[in-house]
Amino acid sequence: MKQFVVVGLGRFGTSVATSLAEEGYDVLAIDKEEDLVQEITDKVTHAVQADATDEDSLKTLGVNNFDVAVVSIGDDIQSSLLATLILKELGVEYVVVKAQTKLHGKVLNKIGADKIVYPERDMGVRVAYNLVTTNVLDYIELSPNYSIIEVLATDKLTGKTLRELELRAKFGINVIAIKKEENEINVTPEADDMVESGDVLVVMGQEKDLDKLREY
Amino acid sequence: MKQFVVVGLGRFGTSVATSLAEEGYDVLAIDKEEDLVQEITDKVTHAVQADATDEDSLKTLGVNNFDVAVVSIGDDIQSSLLATLILKELGVEYVVVKAQTKLHGKVLNKIGADKIVYPERDMGVRVAYNLVTTNVLDYIELSPNYSIIEVLATDKLTGKTLRELELRAKFGINVIAIKKEENEINVTPEADDMVESGDVLVVMGQEKDLDKLREY
Ligand SMILES: Nc1ncnc2c1ncn2[C@@H]1O[C@H](COP(=O)(O)OP(=O)(O)OP(=O)(O)O)[C@@H](O)[C@H]1O
Ligand SMILES: Nc1ncnc2c1ncn2[C@@H]1O[C@H](COP(=O)(O)OP(=O)(O)OP(=O)(O)O)[C@@H](O)[C@H]1O
Ligand SMILES: [Ca+2]
Ligand SMILES: [Ca+2]
Ligand SMILES: [Ca+2]
Ligand SMILES: [Ca+2]
Repeated sequence: MKQFVVVGLGRFGTSVATSLAEEGYDVLAIDKEEDLVQEITDKVTHAVQADATDEDSLKTLGVNNFDVAVVSIGDDIQSSLLATLILKELGVEYVVVKAQTKLHGKVLNKIGADKIVYPERDMGVRVAYNLVTTNVLDYIELSPNYSIIEVLATDKLTGKTLRELELRAKFGINVIAIKKEENEINVTPEADDMVESGDVLVVMGQEKDLDKLREY
Repeated sequence: MKQFVVVGLGRFGTSVATSLAEEGYDVLAIDKEEDLVQEITDKVTHAVQADATDEDSLKTLGVNNFDVAVVSIGDDIQSSLLATLILKELGVEYVVVKAQTKLHGKVLNKIGADKIVYPERDMGVRVAYNLVTTNVLDYIELSPNYSIIEVLATDKLTGKTLRELELRAKFGINVIAIKKEENEINVTPEADDMVESGDVLVVMGQEKDLDKLREY
């Protein structure tokens, strides 16, 4: 089973570390601030106060034995870069790093970071999307013009059967599932199935057709 | 068309503001730091340097005419709370606020914030999930035990037709679509369709059954 070291226990690092630990993985959590280490200590395998820009400290902690490192030092970009360099040099195979800016990301790329993430930027895009398509609850972008979306049934859609709604004919989209209230899901929607108030439709189609449904 | 005001141009706020503007919405972006205002000025409708804890400033900017406000002041929790209060008092109908901690979120709730978001925490959960299920590319949780996942076809799955794979019989899951390379998608997968190397399967099923596929 993979072992993880998480460096920097801000909000993002803490969330990664505790999520991995909840899934049953070995997690070593490191921060230079003792109080953040104390806060997480009961939720991960090990929590240690250390400066991740100090190669000897990381060596002593046996960081080279870990499969994956997540570097989540934000504002101090110098330290983020240095910690990433050291982790790669110590032989950690996969190093994921949180970047603050595009420039930070570019430099991380050059020095060997294996994956660069922009949590605030990506979540900003998602929140914006949710604000303008309020009845879309979640989505998977299958390709630039094909998606699956979860959409709350609007008034126009309720009280009718799928046959009556003619979603395929009208919008060119397929209903994959219907979420009923109380966590019940109909995963084999048929022509006679009724869409009720509070239902969530899971539909697949081309972006331009889904747009029509969003505005329906 | 809805009008948006975004207060606080850190990474999250900037991303929300520019995403909304790219979608064609009217966006007023506010920060107390002039340099952040300068940086965003060409990407949104209006960008203004102002202190969002100053009610008169917000009034002068006509913030009461906006439908939605996004407050993305992070570290200075006092200012985040005060800005939220003022925006609600000025009559902004829907105020979304970024929270730093659970306690921050609770207080925001009490003072009338309409939606509270935790970008770093939520993205931490997603990144952790991606690290431990590397062949799962995206997912929608339909209910606590039912999901749609996008999964990269492992060696065991390639070179066979859907009939041969017997995914429904073996794992109890449905193949909804097959993403081929080059952005081509097969949205009507049939028994004779072949799964090829590089394909991504879009499948729906119960968590316990999807787990079996993930480990297959
Ligand atoms: N050299 C270092 N060694 C260990 N930890 C460090 C080092 N430098 C910074 N950190 C820690 O990294 C953590 C995250 O950094 P910071 O708060 O700047 O990031 P952030 O991007 O604002 O985080 P988030 O937005 O996820 O809350 C802090 O708790 C900080 O103490
Ligand atoms: N009273 C205020 N009025 C206007 N802007 C403010 C006010 N207080 C703080 N800000 C701005 O809010 C922005 C975001 O705040 P901060 O950097 O603390 O959040 P953050 O959570 O670290 O952001 P992110 O992680 O999204 O980058 C800053 O650019 C700051 O100048
Ligand atoms: Ca910080
Ligand atoms: Ca900051
Ligand atoms: Ca942040
Ligand atoms: Ca998703």
